[in-house]
Amino acid sequence: MLTISKNLTFITLSRSSLLNLNHTPFNSTTKLPFPTKAFSFTPMASSSYNPEQARAPPALPLPVPPLSKASFLFTFKIGLCQLSVTNDKERNIVHARKAIEEAAEKGAKLVLLPEIWNSPYSNDCFPVYAEDIDAGGDASPSTAMLSEAARVLKITIVGGSIPERSGDKLYNACCVFGADGKLKAKHRKIHLFDIDIPGKITFIESKTLTAGQTPTIVDTDVGRIGIGICYDLRFQELAMIYAARGAHLLCYPGAFNMTTGPLHWELLQRARAADNQLYVATCSPARDTESGYVAWGHSTLVGPFGEVLATTEHEETIIIAEIDYSTVELRRTNLPLQKQRRGDLYQLVDVQRLNSK
Amino acid sequence: MLTISKNLTFITLSRSSLLNLNHTPFNSTTKLPFPTKAFSFTPMASSSYNPEQARAPPALPLPVPPLSKASFLFTFKIGLCQLSVTNDKERNIVHARKAIEEAAEKGAKLVLLPEIWNSPYSNDCFPVYAEDIDAGGDASPSTAMLSEAARVLKITIVGGSIPERSGDKLYNACCVFGADGKLKAKHRKIHLFDIDIPGKITFIESKTLTAGQTPTIVDTDVGRIGIGICYDLRFQELAMIYAARGAHLLCYPGAFNMTTGPLHWELLQRARAADNQLYVATCSPARDTESGYVAWGHSTLVGPFGEVLATTEHEETIIIAEIDYSTVELRRTNLPLQKQRRGDLYQLVDVQRLNSK
Repeated sequence: MLTISKNLTFITLSRSSLLNLNHTPFNSTTKLPFPTKAFSFTPMASSSYNPEQARAPPALPLPVPPLSKASFLFTFKIGLCQLSVTNDKERNIVHARKAIEEAAEKGAKLVLLPEIWNSPYSNDCFPVYAEDIDAGGDASPSTAMLSEAARVLKITIVGGSIPERSGDKLYNACCVFGADGKLKAKHRKIHLFDIDIPGKITFIESKTLTAGQTPTIVDTDVGRIGIGICYDLRFQELAMIYAARGAHLLCYPGAFNMTTGPLHWELLQRARAADNQLYVATCSPARDTESGYVAWGHSTLVGPFGEVLATTEHEETIIIAEIDYSTVELRRTNLPLQKQRRGDLYQLVDVQRLNSK
Repeated sequence: MLTISKNLTFITLSRSSLLNLNHTPFNSTTKLPFPTKAFSFTPMASSSYNPEQARAPPALPLPVPPLSKASFLFTFKIGLCQLSVTNDKERNIVHARKAIEEAAEKGAKLVLLPEIWNSPYSNDCFPVYAEDIDAGGDASPSTAMLSEAARVLKITIVGGSIPERSGDKLYNACCVFGADGKLKAKHRKIHLFDIDIPGKITFIESKTLTAGQTPTIVDTDVGRIGIGICYDLRFQELAMIYAARGAHLLCYPGAFNMTTGPLHWELLQRARAADNQLYVATCSPARDTESGYVAWGHSTLVGPFGEVLATTEHEETIIIAEIDYSTVELRRTNLPLQKQRRGDLYQLVDVQRLNSK
């Protein structure tokens, strides 16, 4: 729970400082009280080590989560819908709609769906189940449902992913809808899943899909969220960029498999959370041992110390768990990594944010 | 074990391409057969994604481990000496000498010692136990012992760390000795341990110590090794830089504590290994619940899939485990992350290597 520090300062949120954000719901000059770092111990001689130069452009300050405007609380519930997925798209849409409703009934203000929840996960199915998200309406019944559910239930939905058709290309795309039902962001999987572990798992997603061209971070009613899809989780640079853009939470719809799941699924999400000192939520389809691609399951919420806050096994379920953004500040006070980085020795460049300056 | 692929190519090792390396034991133009990536699946359109630009300068190729010259084997044994440490420096040196000898008798060609093994871990002790490593001889009995042991036993020693006095400054320093007894490298802890978790652990290493000014990677008889000390492990950028400089193995002497140990010790080393697809070895002091700083123990060897290959609890022990560098190549073939990075979206700059060009 949040403890309001006596040592309050005011930070100014500037829209111009938030680049490549699809939406900024809070007023661009709102000043809000925010508990700040109260520690006073002697840091390393940071002037010569230039910690601010460890990110280019320099990292943005953590924004005040908009939910605090009303309540001074930084807490809300997230729902992770680990859905069973069949080859019947209509059923999948109705089924996902029911799960979202159930999560909202249980208090979730943010619902996360799995990777490829409207279609079996296979290169054969992607073109068949793909939808034209930009055209909308009948051309994309899956996202039409997400928009309607978000609006009616007044929640934010990070809509897992579906195969997207755009012109002659196919993408693995995640749509984020606000509580008003509007599309706030669309992330196209940046790193395609091309791996070859002989005798275990071989999958070449790039046979059918095209990779996205941009990281996606979005301001919502429940904080600033960076989006990655499954294999994107393997690339620590993406999470580092999102952290530097001020993300509170990273959401990764993902479908790791029976080889990479036990090896890396929990490890990678815990590492992203601990290294970047933010929340990480993942959502997998439930396991179907009859399908061509068998998902690992184990949807999980991880806190900013890399601690598993809620998880599950492989069966269909809805995880409801609490997020408290005040712990992000707390952990960054305990371990002030962002002030201890050595910008004189290494620098991570966010290419698009730098170029847009 | 190594399987020699039919698909052999020859790579040329160029001394000039290896910057900031203290020693290059193999002939600078030696050509050696090396199993290379045999996979032929269609990659993402890497030309436009510029994976080679994800590191600046571009990543160096993985060097051929010198041990393969003689045997065509990429395997050797490592010894992790989880030592008990007392306030009697002479005893600590004799005790460490015996442990190194025992590890060598059990076949270890590389021995790793803990962080601060000749002194209690405290800001009060660092100035008292510090040695002038550069002066050598009687001014540094701890490193004199390491040099002698390495020479007599014909092994490589990554000598944990000791407090170092250099002029009016103190450092937390790790010395690497070759099988000839010569000092190959000295790493001064780059990221000082300044943390504050109220009621749990507060330690301000920068009260007494000065931070090092350079990453340290060194070619030895048992491969190219990147060095970090304890808190250095928290900064993923350092491991990424070492991987880009062609490290086979990262060695982290470390003394996590009873709070950060269970939270992060194994997580961070597994993450560094899996993300960078190389070996990671850590070595802690044994736990002494009577001391002012209680170490977590749990010295560990992790493989390039992030898998724990050998570990222990908190008591004094010597872990002997096998390293097989052919699995580094194998895992990079299974998951070709280095070819899938998005240099068009992010770039990690190795500042010193870039500036030395």
